[in-house]
Amino acid sequence: MGKYVYFFGAGQTEGKADMKNLLGGKGANLAEMANLGVPVPPGFTITTESCVEYYNQGEQLWDTLKKEVMENLARLEKAMEIKFGDNSNPLLVSVRSGARVSMPGMMDTILNLGLNDDAVEGMAAVTSNPRLAYDSYRRFIQMFSDVAMGVDGSLFEHALDGLKKKKGYKVDTDLSVEDLKALVEEFKAIYKKEKGEDFPQDPMEQLWAAIEAVFKSWNTKRAVHYRKLHSIPDTWGTAVNVQTMVFGNMGDDSATGVCFTRDPATGENVFFGEYLINAQGEDVVAGIRTPQPINKSKKKSSDEVSLEEAMPKAYEQLVEIYKRLEKHYRDMQDMEFTIQKGTLFMLQTRTGKRTAQAAVKIAVDMVDEGLISQEEAVLRVEPEQLDQLLHPMIDPKAEKKVIATGLPASPGAAVGKVVFDAEHAFEQAESGEDVILVRLETSPEDIKGMAAANGILTVRGGMTSHAAVVARGMGKCCVSGAEAINLSYQKKLFEVGGTTVKEGDWITLNGSTGEVMAGKVPTIDPVLAGDFGRLMEWADKARTIGVRTNADTPHDAKVARDFGAEGIGLCRTEHMFFEGDRITAVREMILSENEAGRRKALAKIEPMQTEDFIGIFTAMEGLPVTVRLLDPPLHEFVPHDREQQEEMARQMGVSAEKIAEKVAQLSEFNPMLGHRGVRLGITYPEIYEMQARAILKAACEVAKSGKKVIPEIMIPLVGTKAEFDVMREMVDRIAKEVFEAEKTEVPYSVGTMIEIPRACVIADKIAEKAEFFSFGTNDLTQMTFGFSRDDAGKFLKEYVDKKILPRDPFQALDQEGVGEMVKMGIERGRAQRPGLKVGICGEHGGEPSSVEFCHKAGMNYVSCSPYRVPIARLAAAHAALKEKRQ
Amino acid sequence: MGKYVYFFGAGQTEGKADMKNLLGGKGANLAEMANLGVPVPPGFTITTESCVEYYNQGEQLWDTLKKEVMENLARLEKAMEIKFGDNSNPLLVSVRSGARVSMPGMMDTILNLGLNDDAVEGMAAVTSNPRLAYDSYRRFIQMFSDVAMGVDGSLFEHALDGLKKKKGYKVDTDLSVEDLKALVEEFKAIYKKEKGEDFPQDPMEQLWAAIEAVFKSWNTKRAVHYRKLHSIPDTWGTAVNVQTMVFGNMGDDSATGVCFTRDPATGENVFFGEYLINAQGEDVVAGIRTPQPINKSKKKSSDEVSLEEAMPKAYEQLVEIYKRLEKHYRDMQDMEFTIQKGTLFMLQTRTGKRTAQAAVKIAVDMVDEGLISQEEAVLRVEPEQLDQLLHPMIDPKAEKKVIATGLPASPGAAVGKVVFDAEHAFEQAESGEDVILVRLETSPEDIKGMAAANGILTVRGGMTSHAAVVARGMGKCCVSGAEAINLSYQKKLFEVGGTTVKEGDWITLNGSTGEVMAGKVPTIDPVLAGDFGRLMEWADKARTIGVRTNADTPHDAKVARDFGAEGIGLCRTEHMFFEGDRITAVREMILSENEAGRRKALAKIEPMQTEDFIGIFTAMEGLPVTVRLLDPPLHEFVPHDREQQEEMARQMGVSAEKIAEKVAQLSEFNPMLGHRGVRLGITYPEIYEMQARAILKAACEVAKSGKKVIPEIMIPLVGTKAEFDVMREMVDRIAKEVFEAEKTEVPYSVGTMIEIPRACVIADKIAEKAEFFSFGTNDLTQMTFGFSRDDAGKFLKEYVDKKILPRDPFQALDQEGVGEMVKMGIERGRAQRPGLKVGICGEHGGEPSSVEFCHKAGMNYVSCSPYRVPIARLAAAHAALKEKRQ
Repeated sequence: MGKYVYFFGAGQTEGKADMKNLLGGKGANLAEMANLGVPVPPGFTITTESCVEYYNQGEQLWDTLKKEVMENLARLEKAMEIKFGDNSNPLLVSVRSGARVSMPGMMDTILNLGLNDDAVEGMAAVTSNPRLAYDSYRRFIQMFSDVAMGVDGSLFEHALDGLKKKKGYKVDTDLSVEDLKALVEEFKAIYKKEKGEDFPQDPMEQLWAAIEAVFKSWNTKRAVHYRKLHSIPDTWGTAVNVQTMVFGNMGDDSATGVCFTRDPATGENVFFGEYLINAQGEDVVAGIRTPQPINKSKKKSSDEVSLEEAMPKAYEQLVEIYKRLEKHYRDMQDMEFTIQKGTLFMLQTRTGKRTAQAAVKIAVDMVDEGLISQEEAVLRVEPEQLDQLLHPMIDPKAEKKVIATGLPASPGAAVGKVVFDAEHAFEQAESGEDVILVRLETSPEDIKGMAAANGILTVRGGMTSHAAVVARGMGKCCVSGAEAINLSYQKKLFEVGGTTVKEGDWITLNGSTGEVMAGKVPTIDPVLAGDFGRLMEWADKARTIGVRTNADTPHDAKVARDFGAEGIGLCRTEHMFFEGDRITAVREMILSENEAGRRKALAKIEPMQTEDFIGIFTAMEGLPVTVRLLDPPLHEFVPHDREQQEEMARQMGVSAEKIAEKVAQLSEFNPMLGHRGVRLGITYPEIYEMQARAILKAACEVAKSGKKVIPEIMIPLVGTKAEFDVMREMVDRIAKEVFEAEKTEVPYSVGTMIEIPRACVIADKIAEKAEFFSFGTNDLTQMTFGFSRDDAGKFLKEYVDKKILPRDPFQALDQEGVGEMVKMGIERGRAQRPGLKVGICGEHGGEPSSVEFCHKAGMNYVSCSPYRVPIARLAAAHAALKEKRQ
Repeated sequence: MGKYVYFFGAGQTEGKADMKNLLGGKGANLAEMANLGVPVPPGFTITTESCVEYYNQGEQLWDTLKKEVMENLARLEKAMEIKFGDNSNPLLVSVRSGARVSMPGMMDTILNLGLNDDAVEGMAAVTSNPRLAYDSYRRFIQMFSDVAMGVDGSLFEHALDGLKKKKGYKVDTDLSVEDLKALVEEFKAIYKKEKGEDFPQDPMEQLWAAIEAVFKSWNTKRAVHYRKLHSIPDTWGTAVNVQTMVFGNMGDDSATGVCFTRDPATGENVFFGEYLINAQGEDVVAGIRTPQPINKSKKKSSDEVSLEEAMPKAYEQLVEIYKRLEKHYRDMQDMEFTIQKGTLFMLQTRTGKRTAQAAVKIAVDMVDEGLISQEEAVLRVEPEQLDQLLHPMIDPKAEKKVIATGLPASPGAAVGKVVFDAEHAFEQAESGEDVILVRLETSPEDIKGMAAANGILTVRGGMTSHAAVVARGMGKCCVSGAEAINLSYQKKLFEVGGTTVKEGDWITLNGSTGEVMAGKVPTIDPVLAGDFGRLMEWADKARTIGVRTNADTPHDAKVARDFGAEGIGLCRTEHMFFEGDRITAVREMILSENEAGRRKALAKIEPMQTEDFIGIFTAMEGLPVTVRLLDPPLHEFVPHDREQQEEMARQMGVSAEKIAEKVAQLSEFNPMLGHRGVRLGITYPEIYEMQARAILKAACEVAKSGKKVIPEIMIPLVGTKAEFDVMREMVDRIAKEVFEAEKTEVPYSVGTMIEIPRACVIADKIAEKAEFFSFGTNDLTQMTFGFSRDDAGKFLKEYVDKKILPRDPFQALDQEGVGEMVKMGIERGRAQRPGLKVGICGEHGGEPSSVEFCHKAGMNYVSCSPYRVPIARLAAAHAALKEKRQ
């Protein structure tokens, strides 16, 4: 505990980047820039240890600290050649907090500290800019009072607004010097009224108060709460940064700007930025004046004046600095600078945000430039970002009228004419129209229409509602749960916030944001550049967990394979019961009073399903295909409205009453927890037998044509050992029969989805006979939480807003709860069967934090929608690399 | 491995009761009776070890075994003074299997072994009863062929049926001696055709084959499967019992009968039984002749002839034996005997089945007689049996016409006129009618009608459907899920199996069996004798776990307290939102667009809820009362049919459309997993605040009147730590406010229901702030299994029938799955807070095997419906005593 204060800048820097624990993130970064010879406004950092000591001292500044601050202030005065507290030419400073990690609830910045009634005059004289001086002073009073002294900031806002209103001003810059002077008086009066004493005129008094305020802000309720949530020790403390103020608004030889070492939109390796002459940072944001380009080559018209032309010397220095900084930090930098009377100061440098396209290009370029390794390049691109590259998107420059917002259920953009029923959507699309299918919610009957539409909009349902899941599977844009919409199927229109949209009207969806827009908004197609492919290759080299896809058709299988899928982790078979004539046979089965009748109907479906599987096995030649036997409850296969029931009655030659009766009999209070999955297999074994036969026959067919086929038969919704054992026995029996009849054998395996909490508990028992587990984390999340994914949308958003939950557990796997169940399942399963193959096929299989969880939990693979396969590959690489680095 | 064969009877018994492992259950029991000097037909037991050795020998009988069998056979011949294989007067034997535990799949009995074409003549001559001889022979051929030689038994049945048909006979006894002779020939022909050889005439050959058949039956598929299911080692083996045949049908000096040491219906300490002269055991069952009473005192008319009168010597001997056996076994015995030509033989003695009333009386009497201890008496009564004593029941002698069968949802019997809606049921009952409320299903709106009705019948729903749960809570008879019923509210009738029942028709329900009967069937009221009270006292002394009740009203609380409840474990508050005018205020709250409107409506309900709690706290003075805050989703409080919506609209002064819209908006796909429990508390904190205020105000009121009140506030459906913490903070805040206003303080605690799998996983985190856990095993079972209790009835019966599940998990706690989650929750919760109070308030709290589980899991108490409190008390005593004895 020797040294409390570290100087930076003016060639006398004492700290460095790796002293973050002592100097805080901000302090260490300023020191680092100064060490690199980059001109930063000099200043000093009071260590985090001082903050701890402050509390040890009973919340009082102590002598040795004060002494060190005074010494460093003197050093600063010497470097700047002006004096703190010199009313004729005052040295002004900013005071900021800076902990090891950025933390909300900590103290905000205080600027212009050192001003008082006299110094403001001095500043006005020295700068020949009374406006600047008084504006700085009134800002200082407000910030100091609010941030350091706890005076309600809105009192100052009201005073300012009152003055502007009285004068008829629109913006702050309308204020005259006299106005500002009056405001300063009013602000001081507010301070006096609130604090019962005059606004402190002694700069040292101001400084001590500001330093104490930073220390105290370490223990605000919000900061303490945040630390608790994020397990940050109370003993870390925060540092205090005291830094010389510089001004970009001291005349035409001053300026301020922001720049990037490469183009953050495209990734192109060109210097890029904007600046304003005689301005402050916030003027760039305010948008009253148009910022100018930094360099000549980026000028869009000859009216513009680049920094390169206006201040060639400063520009040259800036170029030299950006190159140094990028090389040093080995990543694209986003920098802020101020030029004060011709002198360049760098205020900040940080890793620049960028688009997905830019992230990929910069990462790959930097590998080629020898700046970073391939592994680093992989880590430089956030998996979730890739989503932008895989779908068309709304042109960011386009004008748009957002009429409603739902959930970003399936990314991309879609434009089309509104259609309210699936059949009609299909017909319209067949005839060449672009359509958007709009429904209260969707059901499996709507699949054909969903496939034909450009996009899907639903009024109800969450991120894993039927519409959302199916749309993501299809890689199709979908906005779900736009609850504000009032839809009338009868009137064929919907109404939202005063706008009425009729069938046939154009709308545009942004599935990446959940926005619904009126009319046709232009979209742009993504370009999967060669860089993308190279990056994914490096990712594949790095990752250790497999990536499969959820695909139900040969087409989806092919798309996913092109995206790099290494097999199918979930081939749902329910769609195979809907297509074409099949639904008639399925309904015949449902209406049958006995097993014989059901078998007769199923016999009609079997050859068609066999063909389906032949198509899928062929598309996935050489790769494993996990086929899930029928999962949804039977009532999903019968119509629920009277009209369709009557049509079905005519088709089947029975009375509509009989149909209605059957539908009523099949209906369930909680279909999610109903008669579905293996429960169907137990009560109607003939259904699962038919499916097993179709799968194995198809496998034999494809194998006979010389192709390698790896079928994995998956029993859904298993919750007891007996359920699985009975089904496994059935599959083995059918396999024997089929192999004998086909005179060929195909190796196959039988496993189960683990999606019921009880299955996790008895995983060891299930693993006695099961060769693989595939965690169905959608349903497992529903049951572990007791959340219906179709209903939870109503309160989940509020849960996330109120921080009851960190994230929607249907989007990112809930590792604390559901994850524990998954781990239990894996542990118990592998205790019984060490070689048990384990994967995930819930929607989480394509979500990066969940993929990382799956990697850590020791799964063999993740499986996700075709369009998320690249994301999963990259996320898997990140997980492996992060682990390696630990 | 010395001795393979043990002799019993004739004063030469070598085994005893504790040699069950070696001699099997049956062999040891026969030896025990013989040791007691009870005349059993002598015989010998081949040990279980012999069976193991048989397999070691490659499934062959070996010399030493054969030698021992021959020696024992000789001993038997000597004892009986006739010879095995003596065609003029043959010794006949039975051969039976007998493992350590009774086991299905093992070999059935073979009777009359030793008969052949010659011996049958000898038997006919010796007994002067050719009919007996040939009937015995044809039975032997059939049993031996089927059981020992694997010939399909139905071939013999067909032959017998064919003969009877040809002759126009109705019953087997119509067969003449000539018919029987012909049948013997036909049976032998069948054997020859099937086995390709003549029926074995050599008695020794028959005996060896029968012994081998028993050994082989140890490894039948069914036996192996059963052993696997019940973890019975394959190495135990089965014993073989070879016993002398005795005949009760050798003339008027012969008889057969069944008797009990005490009256199995009433428990009265009197000898009791029935017999038939010149008959075989199966004649008693066949019901062609009316059995006569054993003793004079039980004669119902002078036509009857008691054994006491007919065979006084045998009777005297039997009395002496029954006393000896009861004293020896220290329990009421159920015995079978045969008298052959004046000589009494005891064939079997076992603990007799008895009614609940008899069980209680016998247990208490035996304590008074000094025969058993109080603890033994407690263990003698099965907790589940008590149910019979706590409700009225159908007169067992009454005639009845069962028209449908549903689930035995709530025990007891009820008679009344059919009413199809709750309001009408209430009115009818008010006007003095006995009514049965018949509904497709019930909802909270029906409570008033359910309370007023004598019984409830529903078409849908399982053992834990709304109707079932509420009815059990009310101790009211209920049959649920009578799915065969076609009900039309419109036509005001239901139809089932051809019977039509209109509104106003009488029906009778048996809630203990699930039977629905036409008309008025007489019922009898139970008498809770003084014995019952004494037994329960002993039970309370023995048990260590507390028993509380689930009660929502002062009346229920009082009933439960009278039944011995030590507190309320679950006081649901939803009923408090329905009564009287409250529902109007509740609906006003639901329709409110903002918090202010909701608060206004809630303010109307608060004083009424406060009164409710005052009533309950007063009724439970001095005992803890756990109050659960509102649990059901809001849509349960709004009407779902158009007509009622219109009425509500008129009442509320809004449009019916608005109501319909709100109802639609509130509707859920899976209400069970919907917006309910603490989720309401999070989104509408004002509801829970009102309830907390009402509870604490009521507690203060009651405390001020000098009564002790122990309120425990329970937050339902918690799945995350934050949910609980937010609510706990709210309750503490409200408590502070109320205590300040009331100027008094009442100690209270705040805890949670653990009913979501995730809550078990993070129980340690929840226990940081929660003072108690109450496992809501209804919902926990639903979510752990993924079964909707309202829907699972459709397949759960099949699951139990097919042995996918051992029992309905909504009836008996699933210890393997749900139980594991419960244990995890307790373990993790107590790891965080060692003194955590833990209870159960699901329906399982009154089910004996579940109570035992709760005891073992270390819970502090179970809580159940008032009418199951005595059952839980007894079950808890059993659990403690069983543990003590281990």
